[in-house]
Amino acid sequence: MAKFIANINVMPLKALLDPQGKAVTGSMKNLGLPEIENVRIGKHITLEIEAASKDAANVKVDEACKKLLCNQIMEGYEFSLAELK
Amino acid sequence: MAKFIANINVMPLKALLDPQGKAVTGSMKNLGLPEIENVRIGKHITLEIEAASKDAANVKVDEACKKLLCNQIMEGYEFSLAELK
Repeated sequence: MAKFIANINVMPLKALLDPQGKAVTGSMKNLGLPEIENVRIGKHITLEIEAASKDAANVKVDEACKKLLCNQIMEGYEFSLAELK
Repeated sequence: MAKFIANINVMPLKALLDPQGKAVTGSMKNLGLPEIENVRIGKHITLEIEAASKDAANVKVDEACKKLLCNQIMEGYEFSLAELK
């Protein structure tokens, strides 16, 4: 069994409003950073997983995203896997 | 002026408890994914920035992280910049 670390990004879908991001975009102007725009805020999740192979880990992480980490109605996800030495 | 897109990860510091991550780690077991552990949950932020050069954009994004996006007492951040074509 090998150990993998997964880096998962869960972001609000492009088609949907992101009120938190909108608020932060507005605050940037007040902070003297008007050149920053289109802020979008999602979740970054790291986790460790034990699996026989990278493919097996891939399937498990995908299952975790679909079942728990990501609300697919409002969010999309992507992840990458790296072996932990 | 060029436009850059920044991908920022803000994560709870390793030395600190991450109660949200702990709760999710526990839920993984109930979902039939006991091989997943050590879940940590932070924020993933994307933003667009207009700047004269990549170095200038770098300075601005760093400033945005320190002033608004990241609470450096409890969180650490890292980011990457890519030019938008």
